[in-house]
Amino acid sequence: MTELHEDVSVADEPSPGPPTSEERLLRAATTLFSDKGFEATRTRDISTMAGLSPSAMYVHFPSKEDLLFQLVRRSNERALALVLSAVAPFTDPIDRVRALVREFSIMHARNFRRARIAQYESRHLSPEHHEVVAETRLQIRLAAIREVQNGIDQGVFLIPDPRVAVLAIMSLAVDICRWYSPDGEFTPAELGDINADLVLRILHAPGY
Amino acid sequence: MTELHEDVSVADEPSPGPPTSEERLLRAATTLFSDKGFEATRTRDISTMAGLSPSAMYVHFPSKEDLLFQLVRRSNERALALVLSAVAPFTDPIDRVRALVREFSIMHARNFRRARIAQYESRHLSPEHHEVVAETRLQIRLAAIREVQNGIDQGVFLIPDPRVAVLAIMSLAVDICRWYSPDGEFTPAELGDINADLVLRILHAPGY
Repeated sequence: MTELHEDVSVADEPSPGPPTSEERLLRAATTLFSDKGFEATRTRDISTMAGLSPSAMYVHFPSKEDLLFQLVRRSNERALALVLSAVAPFTDPIDRVRALVREFSIMHARNFRRARIAQYESRHLSPEHHEVVAETRLQIRLAAIREVQNGIDQGVFLIPDPRVAVLAIMSLAVDICRWYSPDGEFTPAELGDINADLVLRILHAPGY
Repeated sequence: MTELHEDVSVADEPSPGPPTSEERLLRAATTLFSDKGFEATRTRDISTMAGLSPSAMYVHFPSKEDLLFQLVRRSNERALALVLSAVAPFTDPIDRVRALVREFSIMHARNFRRARIAQYESRHLSPEHHEVVAETRLQIRLAAIREVQNGIDQGVFLIPDPRVAVLAIMSLAVDICRWYSPDGEFTPAELGDINADLVLRILHAPGY
């Protein structure tokens, strides 16, 4: 359970003061959805863990599905913002792809429980909510395709199909949340560097 | 639900005659565990879907956890057998790695629902059962390390740390089961070739 609370608290910028009811509910849902799964978690388990009554929960989230949606939506929006800000300081295509893969991978290690919910529980979203999340995911994919294509256009990367490289970027980073453990062989930063090296080899970037 | 039954039936060698009670239970559990998750599936849902009484189920499987164990154990044993038989016809390290990655990837596409259970639900196994499965997984990993190391020793692959290449082999193949859809962009065979190419690029194999 320690690992769990680390994952829940470490990830975001700490907010000043004690957590709001809404934050407590989101944290409880993160713990329970990643531990038991969305289907097996009861609404009252979430409110109890957050120290609230079931009716107090409905003030913030109309349903368990809405709580899931907020968690998955935030995860994906954070990932998109991270990908865009990671590349921003650089102009060289190698530096940009390196930063993108590194930060995206580190995120999936540091926030492995939230990432698991975003990846494995999102099939329980309503079609409308799924569409919102799919749009953000598409933006992440397009950002990665843009960076790879940019390197191809500048003659720095050599790969026939940028979609294939992006498949690898996504899989190598996302798959971390499946097997990552804070007690494991590699730290999040090491995994970030390993994946960046692997992707730049795939792209035949000079020097890799 | 069509996709689901395809995944359940297509995968194995068809057995002659109608399915046994045990097979019907394993198929029902595959459907329910991959759809709702292990925790949210009730034992009686499984027996009902298999057309058996709950007590008839206990003749074959003493508990829901045991059913999960049989599914995960079989998945992993099949994967190990596949990896070993895939490389067997070849002597060239490139051909061997290509066959290993290709078949391992195709397996995670064709049997995506069973692979999801093996990957995402195995945390619900008892410690003893988890150990059995972990041993088979280790054998798969060691087989892949052996193939990579063999190519390094023969001067065909150029990578400082074989563990890192094996991380990529595992992640690229396993991650397929997360997002694969029979209606998607790539067929299982195409994904097998894509991943084989990606891994051989990572290994700096000549010609890739």
